[in-house]
Amino acid sequence: MNFRVHVRVIPRPGLLDPQGQAVEQALGSLGFAGVSGVRIGRAIEFGLEAASVEAATQAAHAMCEKLLANPVTEDFVVAVES
Amino acid sequence: MNFRVHVRVIPRPGLLDPQGQAVEQALGSLGFAGVSGVRIGRAIEFGLEAASVEAATQAAHAMCEKLLANPVTEDFVVAVES
Repeated sequence: MNFRVHVRVIPRPGLLDPQGQAVEQALGSLGFAGVSGVRIGRAIEFGLEAASVEAATQAAHAMCEKLLANPVTEDFVVAVES
Repeated sequence: MNFRVHVRVIPRPGLLDPQGQAVEQALGSLGFAGVSGVRIGRAIEFGLEAASVEAATQAAHAMCEKLLANPVTEDFVVAVES
């Protein structure tokens, strides 16, 4: 079966995120109030051939650990849809 | 109320995504089979003070249209959790 995998890779809490700070300031300048703690990372999407949702999720986790995310500085969240 | 907003900004279908192509090749080289159509964009998360989920969603959409996404080249998806 072919699944669609969505991965979010976000800088870990506590690590400096200058891009997020810049966007937070810019949102304030544009008049958007009440925005806090902006964090910016990568959104990765792909199709994946796998036998089951579990197999697809497991493969996607392995891809994050090996290539898509930096385990020292980033957290990742995997979502699989069929 | 304070909501947590997750935004995914992804290059539109049909537009070239060299970063996605590079990652697709790299995943193949690492032995991950069955991966296709890799697209890489930005994942943006922030806290947002708003009266309701609807108000938060509407504000996040406005932020995407004004600053977070390029409407010509990118699509965005907004998810709000309380």
